[in-house]
Amino acid sequence: MSSLFVRTLREDPVDAEVPSHRLLVRAGYIRRAAPGIYTWLPLGLRVFRKVEAIVREEMDAMGAQELQFPALLPREPYEATNRWTEYGPNIFRLQDRKGGDYLLGPTHEEMFTLVVKDLYSSYKDLPVWLYQIQTKYRDEARPRAGLMRGREFVMKDSYSFDVTDAGLDASYAAHRAAYVRTFDRLGFDYVVVRATSGAMGGSRSEEFLASSEVGEDTYVRCTTCDYAANVEAVQVPAPAPVAHDDVPAAHAEKTPDTPTIATLVDHLNEAYPREDRPWHAGDTLKNVLVVLKHADGTREPLAIGLPGDREVDQKRLEGMLEPTEVEPMDEAEFARHPALVKGYIGPGALGSEQASGIRYLLDPRVGEGTRWVTGADTPGSHVIDLVAGRDFTGDGTIEAAQVRDGDACPQCATEGRDGVLETARGIEMGHIFQLGRKYAEALDLKVLDENGKLVTVTMGSYGIGVSRAVPVIAEDNHDELGLVWPREVAPADVHLVATGKDSAVFEAAATLADALAAEGVEVIYDDRPKVSPGVKFKDAELIGVPTIVTVGRGLVDGNVEVKDRRSGVRTEVPVGEAVAHLVGVVRG
Amino acid sequence: MSSLFVRTLREDPVDAEVPSHRLLVRAGYIRRAAPGIYTWLPLGLRVFRKVEAIVREEMDAMGAQELQFPALLPREPYEATNRWTEYGPNIFRLQDRKGGDYLLGPTHEEMFTLVVKDLYSSYKDLPVWLYQIQTKYRDEARPRAGLMRGREFVMKDSYSFDVTDAGLDASYAAHRAAYVRTFDRLGFDYVVVRATSGAMGGSRSEEFLASSEVGEDTYVRCTTCDYAANVEAVQVPAPAPVAHDDVPAAHAEKTPDTPTIATLVDHLNEAYPREDRPWHAGDTLKNVLVVLKHADGTREPLAIGLPGDREVDQKRLEGMLEPTEVEPMDEAEFARHPALVKGYIGPGALGSEQASGIRYLLDPRVGEGTRWVTGADTPGSHVIDLVAGRDFTGDGTIEAAQVRDGDACPQCATEGRDGVLETARGIEMGHIFQLGRKYAEALDLKVLDENGKLVTVTMGSYGIGVSRAVPVIAEDNHDELGLVWPREVAPADVHLVATGKDSAVFEAAATLADALAAEGVEVIYDDRPKVSPGVKFKDAELIGVPTIVTVGRGLVDGNVEVKDRRSGVRTEVPVGEAVAHLVGVVRG
Repeated sequence: MSSLFVRTLREDPVDAEVPSHRLLVRAGYIRRAAPGIYTWLPLGLRVFRKVEAIVREEMDAMGAQELQFPALLPREPYEATNRWTEYGPNIFRLQDRKGGDYLLGPTHEEMFTLVVKDLYSSYKDLPVWLYQIQTKYRDEARPRAGLMRGREFVMKDSYSFDVTDAGLDASYAAHRAAYVRTFDRLGFDYVVVRATSGAMGGSRSEEFLASSEVGEDTYVRCTTCDYAANVEAVQVPAPAPVAHDDVPAAHAEKTPDTPTIATLVDHLNEAYPREDRPWHAGDTLKNVLVVLKHADGTREPLAIGLPGDREVDQKRLEGMLEPTEVEPMDEAEFARHPALVKGYIGPGALGSEQASGIRYLLDPRVGEGTRWVTGADTPGSHVIDLVAGRDFTGDGTIEAAQVRDGDACPQCATEGRDGVLETARGIEMGHIFQLGRKYAEALDLKVLDENGKLVTVTMGSYGIGVSRAVPVIAEDNHDELGLVWPREVAPADVHLVATGKDSAVFEAAATLADALAAEGVEVIYDDRPKVSPGVKFKDAELIGVPTIVTVGRGLVDGNVEVKDRRSGVRTEVPVGEAVAHLVGVVRG
Repeated sequence: MSSLFVRTLREDPVDAEVPSHRLLVRAGYIRRAAPGIYTWLPLGLRVFRKVEAIVREEMDAMGAQELQFPALLPREPYEATNRWTEYGPNIFRLQDRKGGDYLLGPTHEEMFTLVVKDLYSSYKDLPVWLYQIQTKYRDEARPRAGLMRGREFVMKDSYSFDVTDAGLDASYAAHRAAYVRTFDRLGFDYVVVRATSGAMGGSRSEEFLASSEVGEDTYVRCTTCDYAANVEAVQVPAPAPVAHDDVPAAHAEKTPDTPTIATLVDHLNEAYPREDRPWHAGDTLKNVLVVLKHADGTREPLAIGLPGDREVDQKRLEGMLEPTEVEPMDEAEFARHPALVKGYIGPGALGSEQASGIRYLLDPRVGEGTRWVTGADTPGSHVIDLVAGRDFTGDGTIEAAQVRDGDACPQCATEGRDGVLETARGIEMGHIFQLGRKYAEALDLKVLDENGKLVTVTMGSYGIGVSRAVPVIAEDNHDELGLVWPREVAPADVHLVATGKDSAVFEAAATLADALAAEGVEVIYDDRPKVSPGVKFKDAELIGVPTIVTVGRGLVDGNVEVKDRRSGVRTEVPVGEAVAHLVGVVRG
């Protein structure tokens, strides 16, 4: 500790929002170099390398082969797949001295596709699984929580190449199993959830989320079955058609001064009270207007119809429409559609796209036969007893409504159970995708099949946030005193503290440190002569090595103290048995 | 080999200029992603990782501590040291989505200085030696020879921080020793030469050059003593003052149509023949005009006077003036100095800067008392018997003349010997600098000394080209058949070839491969069933693993063949003894 390049801080850094960030800075693991860009100090780098080694071991064990692409990449391959444009402001772009366009790679589908195209030409070469562990770049709008959402970070990304869909399924399954082994070793709680594939294209996709209060991702899990999904991936069970023979014809009614759902519901309960139950927001059909900004620069209006008791979930909406950007419809656009009466928009004005020029997508809950109150396309007027399918139809469905605790579980619904969802928060640590043939088609990756015919290869893409794992492990492994590393990723095995001023203590501690090192045990030895025992213990707890050994007062009785950082349990061990004891502790 | 992600090529890639580049591409170690930007395929990455491990081991062994800075760096620290500007077009610059300026780090003096300033405050904390192994970026004007001069590359850079100059000397010596150990292990011929410190600032500096015909750096070595220096660092021995009492007064003579030195020498030998020896180019004083482009945008004319038998060496000139850029003086600038008569420029027009407005620097050979023929500042006229010190003086000396085989060795000259220099070519693999206090001053890195006084820290900077080492090793370790890796960096220990169609052969080979792997021997097993023995052997020679084992025809007699890739020596080994034999070979 007298020479280790570390300084612990007693105070929390002002810009740290989450415990892991505070502790990693305070304990001297990382330092901020720029927004979302961090430096690994020696202790942090040791943890990072151990995480990296675990990820690499599991990738090698599954038979994936490691290679490494540059981070500085030419524009052309990303142009071919349209991602140069689609990524928008989220990637770093630059020019070289000759004016050539480059980007800092956010992910490498294109490069992997091209290298397989370069080297391979036959079905006999496949499947092949390739990976790299590499520094990647994304110009995040809101870098956050230290290393958790950074702009320079390390990812393991791997890619599978198969001829057949069944092959892709097998490659996907192999990666999924390797990910389970990897995350089991890394030492934090996680959940595997269904996910959307977003800008990556493709079909099947799952996320490995670290369960965490401070996570940015919301996911849902069923309280009854094993269903779990990112909110973006939740598919609301389509209700069975509702009989509507006894529903009166739709009728427009004066509803003065009811531009909001709350005022409308109040008015309905006053002017048109129902016998069975009062009107509530869920009886109303809300029509939300947005504008899609397509990658080619064109803009398209879009209407979303959903129950009035739910908001549009921006992330779900964006997830459905990716890579197209979405923004609220502005006044100028509204003015272009005079049939739209703000606060009183109804299917009359929207109808189908053919009629209105606006695509109209409905929440799955607005199913055949369901009955709604909605705008009558006239100020101060609403339509009552409007029946979906009878009185209006949209141009399709969209999963954009917020998901709430207590919503029906889609899997239970399919299987005839009544399970409900609860929401929780997590941090995306891994993501596996069945990409399919999107990239292979864009970059013309074909191989000869058994019959000598050229076929397009099908791909999977699989990522792990390697640098992100460090704060995620810290988030799940700390207490009020500091970090509490799982042994497999700890920066050292033993934190050895010598206390007092007795030179015999320091000699015994140095001897013990050397003996442990000779056994391959990694030791941080606090040899600082003028630092008080209190400060040394505080530093040891903060740094969070799993085993803290104190050589101090007990030495006169021939003992050292061994403390388990996690449980706090202390054991007196005779100094002569200390090495054997500690080797046993360290090796488990 | 049937599943390894590699394809060997029979043809040389068209863009490869040097053997290492040709072979690394042909043997499937690397692929080009963009000019000067390469992908490591699995075999290449294995070699790279072994090189990296050797560098890391030696840095750790010397007591340096590893950390890691980002590659994407904010402008500010580089602004403080003026390098944001000084690097000119040689660095990649970019802006983030908010318009903030960033660069891709070419070297990290600033960041290391700032982190030490952040963590340390006392002389007791020093010395400290910090390093990183990291991807770096330079926008080279002429990327070359594959990985040898790339735009994205991996360097180990370390930095020492000391309070005293003696401390810096010790830190420098420790690094020098670690570098010798590192390069001894890497397996190529190298030489340590004196160097200039260039844009880095600072004083003492040495380069570790790999001896190579294809190297870009020219260095000189003495044929007598141990002197060796980068040509940029050669200091021409200043001659002792020459007596000139018997030299007649300088006299201008008509020399019509002698704008070049060759025409002048011919004219002199015809019109003014000398008795002792004919006139030659070395008797003339050539005055070369250039323009300096300073970092602040200003331009300054500069005249260089040197013997007419030598050219100005652009690299030496640039090395002397770094970071200022130099270009030839153009017509417009000449027009601004009407006293300069092209082809007949003499010290009359130049004199001292005060008189002419042009700084005039002389080659050290133009010493006190030396006698010259030079321009008389009039067309068709030269001055003869012009004596330096008597008839003209410059504004100082400059080391810009080319260095030639046979030049006097500066060290021998000092020590009274007659050693001469010879030139050779090399590749810069390491560079160690005594930076001194330049960066610490610019970034205000001070610590308290023993007396409680703030003192500025003195620094050293030490680099190794880690990715460059791979082609450099290949350059020094190949033959007409392919690569011949030194064992410590080879992608595998044994290349095992199974030949023929006999399933017993493939079974025996697979068993041997497994048995070797169980012993920790790294094996590439060529299990390809339909590939001819000839192709397999060609691939094995090309890939260049140190030991090639063939299981084939000899198996009926119970033997396998063990071939040393470097010497070509073949040994028949009984199959039952093969594992023990090969473990012995591999472990040396």
